Amino acid sequence: MGGGPIKDHVLCVLPFPEDKELLAKLRKRFPRTEFSYHQVTFAAYGEHDKSVMQVPASAWKEATVLTTLFSLPKTISDVPNLDWIQLFSAGSNHIQNNPVYKESDFTLTTASGIHGPQIAEWVVMTALVQSHKYNQLYELQKKHAWDKKGSGAENDYRSVRDMVGRRLGVLGYGSIGRQVGRVAKAIGMDVIAYTATPKDTPEKKRDPGFIVPGTGDVEGEFPSEWYSGLDKESLHNFLKQDIDWLLVSVPLTEQTTHFLSTEEFAILGQQGKRPSFVTNIARGPIIDQPALIAALKDGTLAGAALDVTDPEPLPSDNELWELPNVTITPHISGVGSSYNERAFEVLAENLERRQKGEKLINVVRRDRGY
Amino acid sequence: MGGGPIKDHVLCVLPFPEDKELLAKLRKRFPRTEFSYHQVTFAAYGEHDKSVMQVPASAWKEATVLTTLFSLPKTISDVPNLDWIQLFSAGSNHIQNNPVYKESDFTLTTASGIHGPQIAEWVVMTALVQSHKYNQLYELQKKHAWDKKGSGAENDYRSVRDMVGRRLGVLGYGSIGRQVGRVAKAIGMDVIAYTATPKDTPEKKRDPGFIVPGTGDVEGEFPSEWYSGLDKESLHNFLKQDIDWLLVSVPLTEQTTHFLSTEEFAILGQQGKRPSFVTNIARGPIIDQPALIAALKDGTLAGAALDVTDPEPLPSDNELWELPNVTITPHISGVGSSYNERAFEVLAENLERRQKGEKLINVVRRDRGY
Repeated sequence: MGGGPIKDHVLCVLPFPEDKELLAKLRKRFPRTEFSYHQVTFAAYGEHDKSVMQVPASAWKEATVLTTLFSLPKTISDVPNLDWIQLFSAGSNHIQNNPVYKESDFTLTTASGIHGPQIAEWVVMTALVQSHKYNQLYELQKKHAWDKKGSGAENDYRSVRDMVGRRLGVLGYGSIGRQVGRVAKAIGMDVIAYTATPKDTPEKKRDPGFIVPGTGDVEGEFPSEWYSGLDKESLHNFLKQDIDWLLVSVPLTEQTTHFLSTEEFAILGQQGKRPSFVTNIARGPIIDQPALIAALKDGTLAGAALDVTDPEPLPSDNELWELPNVTITPHISGVGSSYNERAFEVLAENLERRQKGEKLINVVRRDRGY
Repeated sequence: MGGGPIKDHVLCVLPFPEDKELLAKLRKRFPRTEFSYHQVTFAAYGEHDKSVMQVPASAWKEATVLTTLFSLPKTISDVPNLDWIQLFSAGSNHIQNNPVYKESDFTLTTASGIHGPQIAEWVVMTALVQSHKYNQLYELQKKHAWDKKGSGAENDYRSVRDMVGRRLGVLGYGSIGRQVGRVAKAIGMDVIAYTATPKDTPEKKRDPGFIVPGTGDVEGEFPSEWYSGLDKESLHNFLKQDIDWLLVSVPLTEQTTHFLSTEEFAILGQQGKRPSFVTNIARGPIIDQPALIAALKDGTLAGAALDVTDPEPLPSDNELWELPNVTITPHISGVGSSYNERAFEVLAENLERRQKGEKLINVVRRDRGY
């Protein structure tokens, strides 16, 4: 590929209507690159062929870059010029077993990182809703009641304490955790981070993935302390660090299944310490849910905000729905209108790197699968 | 006072129970200073004499510093050693007409700045509650409904857009506005500031008052642009700057009464622009409330969060209560348990400055009254 910038044909095969404004911006930014856009029906995973048929053979043939959510060409011979696939999803599991991917050596990049800001806003909002007792204020508004006195002792919104000087523990300092860390630091909190592997050099502290400009923690500058490990001892050591607010943002793996259970909540709520608040935006099964419910009911924990539960949907007779110190939303913290726009930002960032001959970001390592 | 540190007697006359832990910390930090604490009943303003009687004459006599919310000595001759009063309130109007203050040349300092973080949290929370359509999610929770689809078009929580790249305009860049600016910047927003007088030098951009450590904007580093003036033309120029979210945090004066009315909302909602969200944590009469209601109803504005209204209490038949894009709370955004602790931080900061011979912070200028 040496010798001058690549003349790319970027084929977009996506289940959304074309955003003409976004595409116009891309064409302006990359004048030597051709873009073609094909809206396909939102096929169920496993029915990808249906969407593939909607794109003409000539388009597949010319493409050097494929931008897609789930649609792959039917065979490698359909895409003789293709060498890079930019996925619009954060993960790539749904593509990795496709024979076209397996038989090829295409570079695969994801849109990981684009959810950070919106989910971080959900995380901050729900924590403040609990600490400022917003639900009580909302119920007053519905009653048209200008009540400055607050109601009973426990739910008294006059006992609000701001978050300044409190400590946020981020279990999984990835793109979402970093953006929450950024905002929490601005609020006046102390932030400590937990990661699977040690981040003991400036290089390791860096976020190597896509970051929405102006957000996140590129250099890993916000945590006052870093902890790591996947064993219980390491986890317990982290949980002992006087954490007021624990954010769960680790991926669900075998090791993180029921990572937090009775013992961990007991450590978090050590004697004499203020009870902690727990937020889970990762996956329900990371938390042993009956243990969580018990800790919320007996005061070991101050409260919880859960966008994920175990199972989902959360059965309507589950106790969690009614606990006054719990906020539950139906796994929607990342759903919103910024998605498409951000995914195109990743594409643009990678196109620029490609044309400069630099390393792409969010590259899936074939050996480990992410 | 030259020649060695001052041997101070700090007399605290306050309507709260003594926080022994806080006092112990102060005594440790200032070993040469004596502190005495007298809890008085919370007298109505104008009945201060009652509280004064509860403090023995010897305590008044020894005091070099008075820490108080409203209690002043009965006569100057009762306090021969006093030369500084640290108020625990943000303002000082309630003290300035007291003959003891008028006849003396005591230095008067306030606790201005201590509300910043908590009110900023309220401001951020209520804006996110609106943009993330939290009330809908809360109603779903009450129904135990795991509904990922959203309800009608207008109230669809699937249309959430995060705040990254949006612009916050802070009308009144004081201690509260600065802390909101700090958090908004961390969220990924652009921040522009408006002040009464031009802040055209680094010195003028600085916050000269008390700042809760780790919060605020000491150097005025967050705004990308600064605007100023008290005339309509200057205000209109500011409102034309493509503001997505306007925070009203100016003091109420003759000039700022009905500072925002029909014309201003029309400018804020210029044709073709996304409607703006408005937050008011200052005083109700700064906004012409019927004009606000009209702008909220006809789509000129996207929504509003109001901790203050005109009048207060807001009458129960006022339309504002029922507007779906409005959050109303009964002037409680600053009410909470951090108050006392923070006020003592101001006292400590000033004690340290006094003993080092430095200028105190939050000094009331007798000539202008604040």
